[in-house]
Amino acid sequence: MERKFLGTHIIAELYGCDPVLLDDVEFITSTLIKSAEKTKVTVVDYATRKFEPQGVSAIIIISESHIAIHTWPELKYAALDFYTCGEEDPEPAVREIARKFKTKELVLFRADRGNISKIEKIMRSNRKNRENEEIRTDEMQVLL
Amino acid sequence: MERKFLGTHIIAELYGCDPVLLDDVEFITSTLIKSAEKTKVTVVDYATRKFEPQGVSAIIIISESHIAIHTWPELKYAALDFYTCGEEDPEPAVREIARKFKTKELVLFRADRGNISKIEKIMRSNRKNRENEEIRTDEMQVLL
Repeated sequence: MERKFLGTHIIAELYGCDPVLLDDVEFITSTLIKSAEKTKVTVVDYATRKFEPQGVSAIIIISESHIAIHTWPELKYAALDFYTCGEEDPEPAVREIARKFKTKELVLFRADRGNISKIEKIMRSNRKNRENEEIRTDEMQVLL
Repeated sequence: MERKFLGTHIIAELYGCDPVLLDDVEFITSTLIKSAEKTKVTVVDYATRKFEPQGVSAIIIISESHIAIHTWPELKYAALDFYTCGEEDPEPAVREIARKFKTKELVLFRADRGNISKIEKIMRSNRKNRENEEIRTDEMQVLL
């Protein structure tokens, strides 16, 4: 099937997680790297940050885009993004990460990114007068 | 006004950009760091990656979450995320970044992240049997 978008971005809200795991930089980093392997994407770099008294940010650059998490152990909450332009859908890996953090309520959004027909249209035309035009779309879907 | 969410995530699709700028790591990094300053967030680390023959990924960890961009100069397209838990709305900075890349068509999505009433509800309860329950929400809005 011909692709309609360059990439898929899953935005996940993890509520009611295990607060000890949410403050463990090594656990978080290894969990994200394993999820990258599962999704067959290539890790090229990563950066982590431990906040005091608690909280972690970890961002993994993959050849295909990025995986990012920010945690609030005191609120048992984490915000996770998995954005890939690879062939594999990142949704199963996101659900697995949520299980590993013992998430009680998981909310997912899916954003299709890089509309190929729009890119092709713009590449064909050369509309110099249309700078900063903004349009409305409905590409964002909430997953069940 | 009492906050209802921990953070705001602007997801931006930049179509018809200047391809030379989209391949310039230094320009990209300095543009994102300036946008962090404008939004009064604190840069704590960043990672960049230049792809061959073209394309750049740059991710800035800020104390308040992250800013990320992935560029496809050959398609004049870039995918930008600005996610912050600070007080300032990142939308003006996103629009400014889009102008700097000479974006012809800009598509924005806004994701409110970290629903505080949901967090409080889960913190009060201790529903051990509700692991991995998923719910539907409509927090994602497309900006005009």
